[in-house]
Amino acid sequence: MLRTHTCGELKINNVDEAAELSGWVQRARNLGGMTFIDLRDRYGITQLVFDMEHHSDLCQKARKLGREYVIKIKGNVRERSSKNPKMPTGDIEILVEELQILNPSELPPFTIEDETDGGEELRMKYRYLDLRRNVNKHNLILRHRMSIETRNYLNKIGFIEIETPYLIKSTPEGARDFVVPSRMSPGEFYALPQSPQTFKQLLMISGYDKYFQIVKCFRDEDLRADRQPEFTQIDCEMSFVERDDVLNTFEGLTKDLFKVIKDVEVGDFPRMSYDEAIKYYGSDKPDIRFDMKFVELNDVAQGKGFKVFDDAELVVGINAEGCAGYTRKQLDKLTEFVKKPQIGAKGLVYVKYNEDGSFKSSVDKFFDQEALKTWAEKFNANPGDLMLILAGKANDTRSQLNELRLEMGNQLGLRNTKEFAPLWIVDFPLLEWDEDTGRYYAMHHPFTSPRDEDIELLETDPGKIRANAYDLVINGVEIGGGSIRIHNRDLQNRMFKALGFTDEEAQKQFGFLLKAFEFGAPPHGGIAFGFDRLVSLFGGQDSIRDFIAFPKNNAGRDVMIDSPSTISEEQLKELHLEVKKPVRE
Amino acid sequence: MLRTHTCGELKINNVDEAAELSGWVQRARNLGGMTFIDLRDRYGITQLVFDMEHHSDLCQKARKLGREYVIKIKGNVRERSSKNPKMPTGDIEILVEELQILNPSELPPFTIEDETDGGEELRMKYRYLDLRRNVNKHNLILRHRMSIETRNYLNKIGFIEIETPYLIKSTPEGARDFVVPSRMSPGEFYALPQSPQTFKQLLMISGYDKYFQIVKCFRDEDLRADRQPEFTQIDCEMSFVERDDVLNTFEGLTKDLFKVIKDVEVGDFPRMSYDEAIKYYGSDKPDIRFDMKFVELNDVAQGKGFKVFDDAELVVGINAEGCAGYTRKQLDKLTEFVKKPQIGAKGLVYVKYNEDGSFKSSVDKFFDQEALKTWAEKFNANPGDLMLILAGKANDTRSQLNELRLEMGNQLGLRNTKEFAPLWIVDFPLLEWDEDTGRYYAMHHPFTSPRDEDIELLETDPGKIRANAYDLVINGVEIGGGSIRIHNRDLQNRMFKALGFTDEEAQKQFGFLLKAFEFGAPPHGGIAFGFDRLVSLFGGQDSIRDFIAFPKNNAGRDVMIDSPSTISEEQLKELHLEVKKPVRE
Repeated sequence: MLRTHTCGELKINNVDEAAELSGWVQRARNLGGMTFIDLRDRYGITQLVFDMEHHSDLCQKARKLGREYVIKIKGNVRERSSKNPKMPTGDIEILVEELQILNPSELPPFTIEDETDGGEELRMKYRYLDLRRNVNKHNLILRHRMSIETRNYLNKIGFIEIETPYLIKSTPEGARDFVVPSRMSPGEFYALPQSPQTFKQLLMISGYDKYFQIVKCFRDEDLRADRQPEFTQIDCEMSFVERDDVLNTFEGLTKDLFKVIKDVEVGDFPRMSYDEAIKYYGSDKPDIRFDMKFVELNDVAQGKGFKVFDDAELVVGINAEGCAGYTRKQLDKLTEFVKKPQIGAKGLVYVKYNEDGSFKSSVDKFFDQEALKTWAEKFNANPGDLMLILAGKANDTRSQLNELRLEMGNQLGLRNTKEFAPLWIVDFPLLEWDEDTGRYYAMHHPFTSPRDEDIELLETDPGKIRANAYDLVINGVEIGGGSIRIHNRDLQNRMFKALGFTDEEAQKQFGFLLKAFEFGAPPHGGIAFGFDRLVSLFGGQDSIRDFIAFPKNNAGRDVMIDSPSTISEEQLKELHLEVKKPVRE
Repeated sequence: MLRTHTCGELKINNVDEAAELSGWVQRARNLGGMTFIDLRDRYGITQLVFDMEHHSDLCQKARKLGREYVIKIKGNVRERSSKNPKMPTGDIEILVEELQILNPSELPPFTIEDETDGGEELRMKYRYLDLRRNVNKHNLILRHRMSIETRNYLNKIGFIEIETPYLIKSTPEGARDFVVPSRMSPGEFYALPQSPQTFKQLLMISGYDKYFQIVKCFRDEDLRADRQPEFTQIDCEMSFVERDDVLNTFEGLTKDLFKVIKDVEVGDFPRMSYDEAIKYYGSDKPDIRFDMKFVELNDVAQGKGFKVFDDAELVVGINAEGCAGYTRKQLDKLTEFVKKPQIGAKGLVYVKYNEDGSFKSSVDKFFDQEALKTWAEKFNANPGDLMLILAGKANDTRSQLNELRLEMGNQLGLRNTKEFAPLWIVDFPLLEWDEDTGRYYAMHHPFTSPRDEDIELLETDPGKIRANAYDLVINGVEIGGGSIRIHNRDLQNRMFKALGFTDEEAQKQFGFLLKAFEFGAPPHGGIAFGFDRLVSLFGGQDSIRDFIAFPKNNAGRDVMIDSPSTISEEQLKELHLEVKKPVRE
């Protein structure tokens, strides 16, 4: 070992001991006869002292060290004259007797500090330097701790981690696959898994009744901000279970993670139907750290001659407590916010419930004080509150109001990243109609089972069927989702039919799974957690990229290693492939 | 839950309790008024009783159940009249009161028994049924336990698991990459990692001084028996370490696994140089469960007129203790064995050291009793032993004798799968000369450091350089390998030069790593264990395939899901690719 201690280890009780440390030069200060160097490693920072009087050669050598040089020193621990209570090692310093430069360093392109001067692009190119910064180190260590704890918790309750293959088969259903050309089978391809879905179902059929895996998944989608082509899932499946068994098991895991990792006790997770979530929050992933539920006003707001409301399918609003004092400018900004193209509302109606009990609204022309009072009653509003109302087509208006609600939550400081509000959304619709292709698509995936009482609708009114599907939502972020699966071949066939598959298509894509259903498939269900997302939530940040060691950018590139890149003609030839360059339009 | 207990849980102390079980019908026996069914799940087998007198409808229904039907029953635990001491649940049975068929089953294509009637191909096609068999279940559970224990051990001693990317960059050095066409960057490709080598080195440069990952790796090689295109590694790297620090750390992990998983105490692992291993065992992965070291005979066997020996570069043999009684037929078989084309010896010389002290050899014409006695002394042979001798070119002869030694170990029962003999092989050559391409190749990889004292040979006699590289060998199987890496850019440049890289080639393939070396790379080194191999060793079996849930066959195919397979024209178009079918010759 090139050290006897780490840079976070030596304390006041080590005074007078000899020590060898290795690490990086964080900073250097020359003070007359002394040179101080902060030596950094993964565990902390220790102050080194070089004394010109004591050892002038050494001190001269130390003065030539640049930032990020890797050095090894030998010296004696001594008590500092001016202690630094902010540093764990702040009571001591090391008087250096020997100095060895293990590797010099060019000046890094940005400072290795919590507040760095490097822009995102530069930091991505030199990701290995960015990863030296504390913030990234803490994120990766958090990720490690969460994966270890997840594994140990699931192991303790009888789950087995089983590795499923990465070189599998492409299926057109779902998102776009990444494919891998086979050299040995010319013209054929493997696909990288979007999830181990079919394999975990096969494992249930094999009798491994509690499976999990922390596993990489791949989707070749056009990347939105904060999506990665490769991402990590906590993937789980159980046999002989009903919906609540799965929910309880993974509520247990989630609570354990909160307790062990964050020292936070979260109570039992509320369960909310999809319909309720949409009605009261305009979203299937409501942030319930704050209330501010939607209030529908059609019965009190329509028929009073205000055309915008009268023509609307839905008039719906929220009550922002204590916001009656919002200025004209603040209200204009909210109106601008909802009118942004990404949100798309036509306008915003406000009603101030003044402290004196009177109302001031943007629709005073159409609604008198009496009328506005009935609104206030619907909202359970009090003097000092501000009601914000949108109108239009029901679905659109709800999602616009969802955005406004979240914005008001931000403005009012109701979305504290240290507070956690998990909930289960249940009873999702089984199918979604797609206008473009004129067919139903599975809202989760084609293996999700309909609720027993809705099965008969498969051939008559498929859009109405509720699924045995569920999502775990925390702080408005979808953390996981799953379902009780179909385990009966006939029902699976009816499902494929509802999705517009011919028998041949179903057979070609999922023949092996359908076949497996014939050999004693047990009832089963499961869930998958987005691990990157879960870690970023625990880390109190929005971006998953900060919790991935080597992420790709929004164009799917790794700018550090410069990938993807061209391959040799010989490689292409071996794979029996030719690149057709697209004609740029 | 569709059960109150598992099928391995109910014991004599549960008698008179009510229980619900779910599982698979393992077998059924009708005995007059009773039907007995063995119900199986992951945890065991429980005997169910249906009593015609007690409940005739139910009994009739039970008689229609086929093998592998999935059922749920409710009943009462009672003491068996004839107990089965071989089964953990053998003291009890369940008198069934309710029976529900959860899913019927077709007759499986092979029996779900320890000794199945299914051939390998059939079992691979129906792998999900094969995985129901106990042997496979035990293998997968062993694998799970080993991965959990590995993670906890490494976590405990300060290692962090960090996920490295799967979509990386193709580099021509080393084995052939699997590549992944990029849709968003037409004509460009990602590659799947052959190992996270460069990323773990970057993590060292980032300061994560103890990294590990249990991770899938990919190699598109022509598959030999028992090679898989995707395989799993325990991948590790450490900073500020010297060779022995790495060896001690992973010797610790290996000992812990033996203790916790197998309850076997293994002593300190011997360390043997590569040169020694070749000289005494003819292999860089000697099986040292048994001795039988090579003895070189050039000085006593040459110059006596036996042309085969006289023309040979090396005359070398082993002493098989107690085998002087081998019959003519047995000796002929050994000769045939070494003459197999895969081994390639021209012949085999034997010397029997008879119990009466006389010698009988296949070369009595050239060597008298006196001469043979000097051989016996060299071998430390005793009356009753059999000396087996090969001659020819040194390298070839050693590897032939290695095969013969292993064969004799098998014949003499010296290779017990319950016994474990680990050792470290150290001081590998850094480079290997390749006649075909007329250049040196890195024996491990181009980042392996030469031993300090040999560095000066890089430009003068590169073939002589010993590397700071090491392998962990257990029972003649290479379990892991690694090295202290180069962390100095100049030395890395000299290494690339010795490997015949131009500056441009080095820059194009490894530019990001060379650049990273300029910003304070610490001394570092690591190791990777072949996890599939390690598990199969612990499982006492040779084939890694039995320890992988869904393995591929020797042609790289997954015959269960029928992959690789063709993809749609649309997919190819999106990827800007065209398949060029090879002309069959």
